[in-house]
Parts: sequence; C-alpha cells; structure tokens
Amino acid sequence: MRVRLRNPDRVETLAGPLTVAEVLERLDLSPHTVLVISGGQLVTAGHTLEDADEVEIRPVISGGAGAAPRCVWVDPGGDARGCRAPAVIEEPRHRSAWCPEHFVEHVQQQIRKTIDHPPARPPHERMFSYGDRLLVAVSGGKDSLALWDVLLDLGYQADGLYIGLGIGGYSKRSQVVCEEFAAARGAQLHVVSLAETYGYTTPTGAQASGRSTCGVCGLSKRYAFNKVAVDHGYDVVVTGHNLDDEAATLLGNVIRWQDPFLARQRPVLPATGANQVRKVKPLYRLSEREMAAYCVVRGIDYVVEECPLVDGNTGHELKATLDALEATSPGLKAQFLFGFLDKHATKWDEEAGDDPPAGLGACETCGMPTTGEVCAFCRQRDRILAALPLLSADRPQADLPVT
Amino acid sequence: MRVRLRNPDRVETLAGPLTVAEVLERLDLSPHTVLVISGGQLVTAGHTLEDADEVEIRPVISGGAGAAPRCVWVDPGGDARGCRAPAVIEEPRHRSAWCPEHFVEHVQQQIRKTIDHPPARPPHERMFSYGDRLLVAVSGGKDSLALWDVLLDLGYQADGLYIGLGIGGYSKRSQVVCEEFAAARGAQLHVVSLAETYGYTTPTGAQASGRSTCGVCGLSKRYAFNKVAVDHGYDVVVTGHNLDDEAATLLGNVIRWQDPFLARQRPVLPATGANQVRKVKPLYRLSEREMAAYCVVRGIDYVVEECPLVDGNTGHELKATLDALEATSPGLKAQFLFGFLDKHATKWDEEAGDDPPAGLGACETCGMPTTGEVCAFCRQRDRILAALPLLSADRPQADLPVT
Repeated sequence: MRVRLRNPDRVETLAGPLTVAEVLERLDLSPHTVLVISGGQLVTAGHTLEDADEVEIRPVISGGAGAAPRCVWVDPGGDARGCRAPAVIEEPRHRSAWCPEHFVEHVQQQIRKTIDHPPARPPHERMFSYGDRLLVAVSGGKDSLALWDVLLDLGYQADGLYIGLGIGGYSKRSQVVCEEFAAARGAQLHVVSLAETYGYTTPTGAQASGRSTCGVCGLSKRYAFNKVAVDHGYDVVVTGHNLDDEAATLLGNVIRWQDPFLARQRPVLPATGANQVRKVKPLYRLSEREMAAYCVVRGIDYVVEECPLVDGNTGHELKATLDALEATSPGLKAQFLFGFLDKHATKWDEEAGDDPPAGLGACETCGMPTTGEVCAFCRQRDRILAALPLLSADRPQADLPVT
Repeated sequence: MRVRLRNPDRVETLAGPLTVAEVLERLDLSPHTVLVISGGQLVTAGHTLEDADEVEIRPVISGGAGAAPRCVWVDPGGDARGCRAPAVIEEPRHRSAWCPEHFVEHVQQQIRKTIDHPPARPPHERMFSYGDRLLVAVSGGKDSLALWDVLLDLGYQADGLYIGLGIGGYSKRSQVVCEEFAAARGAQLHVVSLAETYGYTTPTGAQASGRSTCGVCGLSKRYAFNKVAVDHGYDVVVTGHNLDDEAATLLGNVIRWQDPFLARQRPVLPATGANQVRKVKPLYRLSEREMAAYCVVRGIDYVVEECPLVDGNTGHELKATLDALEATSPGLKAQFLFGFLDKHATKWDEEAGDDPPAGLGACETCGMPTTGEVCAFCRQRDRILAALPLLSADRPQADLPVT
C-alpha cells in the first residue's frame, strides 16, 4: 500500500494486509498524535488496510486512539450511549468513540455549550445570539474552517475574514482554500491583503522592524480583525483558538505569572469602548485532533502544512510539555484550562484594571481604540514603513518558500 | 586524562591538554547541567585540563556555566561587585560568578534572607530564631547536608535526623555519610530505622500496600520528622527542598489546580495544633546546582547517586520541562516560584480551610494529630503489616540493588 505522510511530506510503500496499528508501529508513529485516512475516511487502530489502499497519515498535536471500534460515548450524566456503528475516532479524555454522524454531533454540542454558557461571564449571558452578525477569522487551517462550518450549520449569520499575510506560497494556498470553502457554501468572505492595505507583509514587516514574525503577524491580525468588523458593522469577531492553543498559552502565562494576560485569557472579551468589537473563542473545549477529525469527516479541505515562519515559537514547546503529561493523564489539559476558567480566572479580575481602561481614546492616526496617542499597530506600521526602503533589494522576502 | 562521569558511572580517557568546554563537547554534555571537578576544586569552562589530571563530572539538574571566569556578582541594588579572583561557578539567573569564598557567602546570604523574611507570612516574622531548637531532616544528599552545614555555621542550634528507609546499599551509604558529617562537626544526629521502629521498609511497604514507593516513603518520612521532633522537644523541622524541587511541585499543582496543595505550598507551615511542629524550607531560593556546588566548595561528602526507586516519578518530568524553559530564559524558574509565593499564594488562602482544621484531634493509635480517628500513617502502617506476611518469601525486597 502507498502511505503518504504529511508535514513534512514523504511516501512509504508497505505490503498489506496490515492493521492501522501495525502500519503506525512500522513507521514508528504514535497513534495518539496522528489521524489515519483511507479512501477519504478516518480509520481506527484495528482497521485492516489492503495492498491496494491509498493511506494518508496526518500529524495532529494531541489526543488518543485506542482499540475501541464502536460508536459509544459518555453523556453529561455519565451514562454510556451510542449507536454501536463502527467508530472513526476515539478520545480517551471523553472515554468515548464516535461514528462520523455522532462525532459531528459531539463537536456541535461542545460548541453549542460554549456559546450558550461561556465561563467567567455573568449567568445566562451567551457568547452571541442569532441576531448578531459574526465575523469568523479564517486562516485556511482546520480550526477556523471547521468553526465557520459549524456556525453556518447551526444557522448563525457568519461571514469570513481572510488576511493575506504575504507568506509566499503558503499564504496563496491558504487563500484559495478559504475562497473555495466560502464559494461552496454561498458564504461571504472578506479578503484583506496586508501588503495592499498596509504596505508590508509578515516577513518584510518583521525584517524591517526587527521584531519576531509571530509578533508582527499577531498584532497585525488582531488589528485587522477588529478594523474590518468595525468598518462593516459586525457585532462579534470569532476566532478558532482550540483547547491545545489555549492550554499552552495559559501554561506560558502561569509560568511567568503574566497578570495582565491572565486577566484577559477568557473565551469572551467584551468590547470596552467605541470602535471595539466583542471577541469570542467558541472552540476552547475541543482539541486540535478533534478539529482535524471534524474536517476529515465533513470533507473540509484545509491547509495541513504549518506556517513556514513558526520555527522557535515557544508555544510549540509548551504544547509538547502538556502533550507529554496528557499521554499519561488523559484529560489533564482540559482540567488545567477549564479549572482555570471555571474557578480561578476571577482571582485575576483585579489585575485587568478598569473596564473600560482609564484613558481609552481614539488613535490619532487611525481612530481605533488605544490608551496612548497612537495605537500599537500604527506605531509598528510607521516603524516598518520607515525602515522598508532601507532593506537590501536582493533579499526582499527573507528566506521564504515561494512555491 | 581520566574523566570519571557520575550517575550512571563510567570512565573515559582523553588526551590533554583540553579546556573544560572541549571535554564537555567531546562527551556530548551540556555545561548547563553538570559540575566539573579537578583536584577537588570546581573548574569553569575556560580552565585547561592536562593529561595527568583526574577529572570528575557530576550531573546536576539545572543552572548554567558561561565563560565568565572572574568573581563578579550583582548586589541587591543592581551594582556589580566582586574580588575578581578566579571564579569556580557561574549562575546566569544571578548574572554572577563567584570565587569559592564569595560563593559560600552568597549561599549563606540567600538562606539568611529566607530565614529572616519568609514570603506569605506576617511582616517581621522569622522562620525561626536563635532560641529555637531545630531538627534538620538529612538524607545524605547535597541539599540537606549543605543546609545543616550552613545552619551550624550561622550558629543555630541544629541537630540532624536520618531516617533509614531500608533501600539496600543506597540507604546504608547514605547513613554512613550523615554519621561522618555529624561526627566531624560534633553535631547530634538522630537515626530512626523504619524497619526497626515501624516494622517495614520503603520497598516492602510499597509491595505490601500496593502503593507507589514514593507515596509510602513520603508519608513515612513526614510522619517520622514530626514524631521525632515532638518526642525530643524540637521547635522546628527543617527540610532541604530547593528551588528546583519547589518549582516542579508548584508546576504539578498548578497544572492540576490542586487547591489544598497550593494552599499549603509555603516555605513556612506553622504548627496548627498539639503534637505538631512548625515546618520550614530555607533552601527554596537556591537551585540544585548551587547546592551541589556548595558541597564541593566546602568539601562536604554527599551521596551523588539518586534513589534507585525513583523511576517514573513525575517530578522529574516537570523538572525537565522547567529546565528546558530555563535554558532559554534564565531566571524563569525563580520567577515562577517566587512570583507565586510573593504575590499569588494568598489567592489560595481560603482553600486552606480553617486554622486549625475543624475536627483536628489525636490519632487513636499513636496520638499524633489527625482529622480522622486514625491518622493516615497508622492506617497505611496497619495495611502494610497485615499484608507483609503474605508476600512471597523469595522476593522480599523487590528488585533492589543490595550492593
């Protein structure tokens, strides 16, 4: 059989028949960190693969796969339920396995629960309601496209926003994936190019300012999300941060006791002044692996490769730490994040300062909210645009893949 | 030159002259995780080793060694001071390097600061004073012997307590090291054998009870520390938990949001009732590497090998995580622990419950404090003594090294 391993890509040829577990063992891969796809479907550890099968193995950050091949899940009351159809994904944290249909239901229910009962907010307050206009920040990756898919399926007014960061072929492929997703669903997608609108890309901006690519990129995206939402009258910006993202961020913030960040790490950040839109994270209860599986089950094409500029991002180190602990204690990651949000987050409420912050006004350059005279985005942009002409002409895009 | 690597032990022969940095590179060792000793003295990265030199390389958990070969340290006001003599140890966290004499002063000052100004306690309260009788729990390892040494040097009334855990040759060697240390200083050492006093050892107790060795050992030691202190009229039990120990414990408690443990993770635990002695941890500001270096500089013989039963202790995984983060951000470990103790620990004061705890009384079996009828130690001991006769006679000590 032909086995295609993704990210980094390579192809292995193995003689069948072999079970999925045997294939993973021969390739020295852990079933807890990959999804196995054959004939467009997820398959579990005990599934037998034949010589003629085309198999794809996609890395995901965490999760688990045992030998529980039937759709059986544990409901909130602790009772086992399920249709006993062949399962396509297991999750030790939930002590559950699901058939494709019930897995989609599981993902939708987790998101529904998050929307209707966000933690660390007043009781009965929802993240958003059916009357709100939502702007979903989509990157072309699994999390944001799956989130947009669920929100449309649940009947919300959800448009998309893609920001072109100018990261070579990676950005071009990501934009195509988002455009095709929107076209197939008749959904509206806004596209903003950093280069066309603001005069720089993530790599040139980082080079010109001397800041990290992740730093320049993050500030630019957060600004553009809010700006587009304000300009087009959206009520809420929705982002696809998942359980793994949020748990790793929390760990980094706790290890350094970053009080202002701990005060703001919430699935709901209300708007605190003019020209500011509420921000929400409805995926924080779902892992990366669950989101990747959702995309496969629903046939959503997403960009599997990671951002080529992400090297050295400490978020990866923190995720690896949590994965190692999760492997021996399934559910630990969720316990860490949910424990903080449900019980301890309010301990940092005082560190958040005034609401709205004292001195919050409008940026002299762009009119967006800031506590200074010129907002952080405009200051960064000014610095970049001043330095860009000085960059050597023969390395305008750093060492970027342009395929 | 003959290079003796410790724990696990092996010997390498290298042709000199080589700098310490070159030796470490050839042996694929990081200068940040070892101490290098030649002729009984610590040596730094730039020191040249000759063919005739006998070199010992001791693993320690963390720290750093650069190329700063002169005694220069940063005082609390941020000013550089130092005698410019050749340095024997550097610590990136302190941006300092010390000659032997000033390093001893540094360790003493850190301990003095901790004794006189413990965090999360009322202002002007000391850990203990010169009128108190201290019982230092010594294991034969670097931390507890260095601590006892400093306390005697500072003039405190400090006796030692060694608990014989019955872990084969490891325990025998540890006891000899403690006895020789005490004899050389004319200090009093209490020795309690678990087997003679309570009828079991750490390995047989774990086997009989089905609990982990670390669990049985920890409960037995905590009980015996307090019992011996009460029986002999000591005011304070002093333990050698260092910065690495406490930071790793804190990380484990935070990741699982163990509220009762977070409420009790303090360098001072006052006695809350009868038959209970105050417990203090004066080493929490000093790293494992600093304590190991102190022993070498002061000529203190300690047991370098680790407990042979410690495999699978999750504390090691948590230490490795913090070490990886510390390597790129020197001081992060201290920032994490001290930030908690100085600023956030009080957030968990409510979780500590009443002080003294409601229902604290005397154990029906032994009279020591408990909130139940029989204390946790006596319950564990009863279970062990009931099961011990049933253990197979041909494997009485599990798979223990008895050398």
